[in-house]
Amino acid sequence: MLEVIFLGTGGSIPTPGRNTSSVMLRYEGEKILFDCGEGTQRQMMIAKTGTKNLKRIFISHFHADHFIGLPGLIQTMNFNGRVEDLAIYGPLYAERFVELIKSMGYCKFRFNIIGKELKEGDFIDGDNYRITAFKTDHNVPSLGYIFQENDRLGRFNVEKATSLGLKPGPSFAKLCSGLPVELDGKTITPEMVIGPKRSGRKIVYSGDTRPCESLFNASKGADLLIADGTLESDLKDWAMDTKHSTVRESAELARWASVKRLILTHISPRYSDNIKKLKDEIKEFDSAIIAEDFLKIEIPFQD
Amino acid sequence: MLEVIFLGTGGSIPTPGRNTSSVMLRYEGEKILFDCGEGTQRQMMIAKTGTKNLKRIFISHFHADHFIGLPGLIQTMNFNGRVEDLAIYGPLYAERFVELIKSMGYCKFRFNIIGKELKEGDFIDGDNYRITAFKTDHNVPSLGYIFQENDRLGRFNVEKATSLGLKPGPSFAKLCSGLPVELDGKTITPEMVIGPKRSGRKIVYSGDTRPCESLFNASKGADLLIADGTLESDLKDWAMDTKHSTVRESAELARWASVKRLILTHISPRYSDNIKKLKDEIKEFDSAIIAEDFLKIEIPFQD
Repeated sequence: MLEVIFLGTGGSIPTPGRNTSSVMLRYEGEKILFDCGEGTQRQMMIAKTGTKNLKRIFISHFHADHFIGLPGLIQTMNFNGRVEDLAIYGPLYAERFVELIKSMGYCKFRFNIIGKELKEGDFIDGDNYRITAFKTDHNVPSLGYIFQENDRLGRFNVEKATSLGLKPGPSFAKLCSGLPVELDGKTITPEMVIGPKRSGRKIVYSGDTRPCESLFNASKGADLLIADGTLESDLKDWAMDTKHSTVRESAELARWASVKRLILTHISPRYSDNIKKLKDEIKEFDSAIIAEDFLKIEIPFQD
Repeated sequence: MLEVIFLGTGGSIPTPGRNTSSVMLRYEGEKILFDCGEGTQRQMMIAKTGTKNLKRIFISHFHADHFIGLPGLIQTMNFNGRVEDLAIYGPLYAERFVELIKSMGYCKFRFNIIGKELKEGDFIDGDNYRITAFKTDHNVPSLGYIFQENDRLGRFNVEKATSLGLKPGPSFAKLCSGLPVELDGKTITPEMVIGPKRSGRKIVYSGDTRPCESLFNASKGADLLIADGTLESDLKDWAMDTKHSTVRESAELARWASVKRLILTHISPRYSDNIKKLKDEIKEFDSAIIAEDFLKIEIPFQD
């Protein structure tokens, strides 16, 4: 199961309806957090996500609305008796910021909190997935992240296997595990009945950024792109000044990159009560929607 | 107008229904904040308090649930174009903590944020009020605060004034402003028609603390005591270990100190869904209630 939960979809300032940035991925029992704005721990409580098996947090950049939820979250984890390590990844100065976060108050941590700076192309391998950092174009050091599930086994050609004299059961399983099967003196190899490997699912998190080549390249063919959708097209100059994207810019990038699904987030507080203008701008993009706090979607396999 | 708004009434950890500690006083157009847990700025948005004329913030102690809302709040103020100074008061290391708070991110502040350590007995004079720090008994350096409105004019004895030949109008106003009035060759002084000065209103904020003598002394005759009510009596040992109070202990202290109204806050997350046990413990104390987020009460004059 691969699921995305939007914990905070607001811009630099929260609003009554949108908390500051945070997105959680749930993958096969593990939780992965992308950004952790102020109040994220409470959003997690409301969404009933828990913090068990949350081992890795990826921060896109060290603006307050993307990481100020960390001190409260780690202190609550400590309060609740956590002993497992927690890794916090981020761009330039990540180690220094993590030390700062740990020093907020009088807390003596009973678990390790490891801050680690990532550079473009650095990756973290998890259990059946890889998360790779890529450069984005914001006004402070920033990164986006690609979650890439490992390749899956190719499709099993039951018809062909049957025509070779195999019967469903242990021999099928053996072939699926990559081993050959002997039948009537013939050797049947996995390649004979199993198609080419199928790509795992891919989710891209842009963080705050202008549309840029590295985001485009990272997004190619993604099952889901979670992208900066701070402003409307009429405020493109402002988006350029503040190094954000308009919803239309992100939607166009997603289309060119053949992204299967686009969810726009980091919505400016100016739209807190009314996102109609933003919705109108992307209505021609079938695969694009505006995020809402607590929106939860499952990412299915494409084939 | 003197009003109290509870922005966060939870304990060390927020719950879906209770944010971490923060209480706002509104007095004649000015706003004063006592503690500022994570998410306080959003609670202020929901309560529509605004940040205009919020010039002073008093932190009871530097545990995360009492001050981690500051970085987000001050950065939002900056974002919104604030230019007025902001003073943040607190116990030992206040200056150091305020510097830490200011360094959370890449924010360049366009207004002054002044951290100031207060010691027991130190006071800040505002426009017609004084806020005095007193020692409390928590497990890190901590303070409680007394908000004391200045004395008001005594009661004007209309009957006596009339018997002296005065008529309502300019002469009444002159006497009220402290000046004597001449009538038929006689001098009528304010003291002759105006009673003794009446005490201003008094609100005491305990922060997190065990019941203690200094809190008792500070609370004497208060119009409102906002006190630590973390736990129930069955968990008194735990309250003692963690330097908190049970609701019953605070209610008893308030009764002995002749407090007119008691509101218990910093409710442990264990009661998030059910405060019946706490309510039952204080049902014999007519003037005591358990706080809720967004509870708003006005403090009237007593005479």
